[in-house]
Amino acid sequence: MGKTRLEAFSDGVIAIIITIMVLELKAPHGSDLSSLLPVLPSLLAYALSFIYLGIYWNNHHHMLHLADRISGGILWANLHLLFWLSLVPFVTSWVAEDSRASIPTAMYGLVFLLAAIAYTILERAIIARQGPHSKLKAAVGDDRKGLASLALYATAVILSFVHPWIADAIYVFVALIWLVPDRRIESLVQSALHTEHGS
Amino acid sequence: MGKTRLEAFSDGVIAIIITIMVLELKAPHGSDLSSLLPVLPSLLAYALSFIYLGIYWNNHHHMLHLADRISGGILWANLHLLFWLSLVPFVTSWVAEDSRASIPTAMYGLVFLLAAIAYTILERAIIARQGPHSKLKAAVGDDRKGLASLALYATAVILSFVHPWIADAIYVFVALIWLVPDRRIESLVQSALHTEHGS
Amino acid sequence: MGKTRLEAFSDGVIAIIITIMVLELKAPHGSDLSSLLPVLPSLLAYALSFIYLGIYWNNHHHMLHLADRISGGILWANLHLLFWLSLVPFVTSWVAEDSRASIPTAMYGLVFLLAAIAYTILERAIIARQGPHSKLKAAVGDDRKGLASLALYATAVILSFVHPWIADAIYVFVALIWLVPDRRIESLVQSALHTEHGS
Amino acid sequence: MGKTRLEAFSDGVIAIIITIMVLELKAPHGSDLSSLLPVLPSLLAYALSFIYLGIYWNNHHHMLHLADRISGGILWANLHLLFWLSLVPFVTSWVAEDSRASIPTAMYGLVFLLAAIAYTILERAIIARQGPHSKLKAAVGDDRKGLASLALYATAVILSFVHPWIADAIYVFVALIWLVPDRRIESLVQSALHTEHGS
Repeated sequence: MGKTRLEAFSDGVIAIIITIMVLELKAPHGSDLSSLLPVLPSLLAYALSFIYLGIYWNNHHHMLHLADRISGGILWANLHLLFWLSLVPFVTSWVAEDSRASIPTAMYGLVFLLAAIAYTILERAIIARQGPHSKLKAAVGDDRKGLASLALYATAVILSFVHPWIADAIYVFVALIWLVPDRRIESLVQSALHTEHGS
Repeated sequence: MGKTRLEAFSDGVIAIIITIMVLELKAPHGSDLSSLLPVLPSLLAYALSFIYLGIYWNNHHHMLHLADRISGGILWANLHLLFWLSLVPFVTSWVAEDSRASIPTAMYGLVFLLAAIAYTILERAIIARQGPHSKLKAAVGDDRKGLASLALYATAVILSFVHPWIADAIYVFVALIWLVPDRRIESLVQSALHTEHGS
Repeated sequence: MGKTRLEAFSDGVIAIIITIMVLELKAPHGSDLSSLLPVLPSLLAYALSFIYLGIYWNNHHHMLHLADRISGGILWANLHLLFWLSLVPFVTSWVAEDSRASIPTAMYGLVFLLAAIAYTILERAIIARQGPHSKLKAAVGDDRKGLASLALYATAVILSFVHPWIADAIYVFVALIWLVPDRRIESLVQSALHTEHGS
Repeated sequence: MGKTRLEAFSDGVIAIIITIMVLELKAPHGSDLSSLLPVLPSLLAYALSFIYLGIYWNNHHHMLHLADRISGGILWANLHLLFWLSLVPFVTSWVAEDSRASIPTAMYGLVFLLAAIAYTILERAIIARQGPHSKLKAAVGDDRKGLASLALYATAVILSFVHPWIADAIYVFVALIWLVPDRRIESLVQSALHTEHGS
């Protein structure tokens, strides 16, 4: 299996996921500005999920760019990742229905936590196949960002039972880590991680 | 017709099928964990169908990798396969509505039985075109896994009228045959086939 | 504009159209075989539209295979064709709602008539650009099948007001012309055309 | 990141957006011609959005054709554009629900205004990366059409509060500017701009 077709299939699936979410945005049942209000949480949730999927697409591409050959195990690890990503429209529309409820907010984070775990498994599978001189291993390094995201998602899932807005803030924060890739933010993440793990 | 465009079109259709199924997963009508319960059968049915379509995509790719040229017959045999696969979201959402009913469970298996028959027809069409020294023929061999799947689907369709859970167990079992490709499972399939055919 | 990207975009749009139609197939509201009955017209309409779109995809590919360069005019002629094809899911679900009504049956044919006209315009645009020694012109010849389809669609639209089943029969017949491409059927089409035009 | 994969992903997303809009076209609840009437605004809105997305796809392709390499900034500028385009089905179905209301008509223009701004940002990002001898800069020139569209969208958003039909006329007019690219229309745009800005 060449990696070109794996990339094309993954691109197709992510392009569809990122776009069909918009089908959950039902046209408001009125024609004034106030009728847009109930749709607002949906719009914000959609925007956040769009950014997350954009980040996944971007990272997925860079990772596969450094992969050499695709084994059966890598193929299924990739489908495993796509499975969790495909549940994003589901949890996005649930969280949009009642954004102040704990369970949907926690489920939103849980799906991204499982997607992040699937991403890590895929990464490890590619590195394992490349052997000791793995190009991907060299590029990823100790993958602090990835591990920080995992920890932050897990923290958000738990803290959404304290208050959903705490979890929402963490979700936005994780997106920012990947969107604004500078050193200060990374060190900020680490200190935040220490604080949250300590709490 | 080059096979590249046939592959790209098939990939596109399978990527869409695998993703739009998630649109059938309606956001729960509540915000507590118990409101997730009625969605659970949908989620499980979605996961199983996702795995099945992943297996089809994987096998389809390997088969076309060994094909040389595409004739009109192969093109239509391929569209025939895509037609049955495109009905997967329909039967998945039906089986999810009442997972303890016989008819939807049988229909679920029937669509996969017809897809498996379409797959076999496509395989034969490619082999026939390749002639006596067919690479695909050599790779497929006597295609025990494919024939076992056909027999298992047919058995499941019938046994879903005895009890749907028997059929469900067979569906999971067929998925496992393709996911975990080791010798012991294959011999297990064969003995299972003998038992079921004897019953 | 290279034709590769035009092909890829068209393939993508047709793949999506052919697949999202299945979203109109709502899971039956019961679990016995009789609850499948109200869905049956949808299933048949879906199957016919699937075959039509398969034929369009097939012919579209062969036509573009013989095209050289893409002009702005060809690009928009292609989008014009895709527009009418994109309305297929809409008329398919309308005809499925009440398959014995004249208007939906006529509209179904009208969309395919307009798609066939758009296809002919695209064909002419490519031939015009290729000049006197057009490869496509040589391959298409006098395009009797295409013209026959146009005439048959127009006839079906009119005859659906006499009885929808006459139109349905013509729709199935046009699909057969393209699926079973032998000489006898073609001469059959011509005599049928004479009869229908004479009526 | 090669630009091939960026193009393929963008094509996929635009192909999906352009096609899923048709899912908002619900089959009429009757079988006579008059039952098509309530769907007519939807059909017209769909047709206009289809043309707009076709224009975007066309221009996007020409722009990327002149781009050399893709940076992280260009990638996110591209996703930013796709985000606003992905909201087109949402505003299209809203404007179709009550085409005589000001707010939905204004929102329709607002999404295209934001898409046009995102397009301009993407254009600038590519030009900036190409440096002083930018091929894209040379091709785009002073981009009068792009700036005129921006101004016309903004004008339409404001004038939709005077009367929605004025905005609708401007939307059709902007589409015509891009569809019929001759000099007279361009000068017409400029004089129109002067008049509207003067009002």
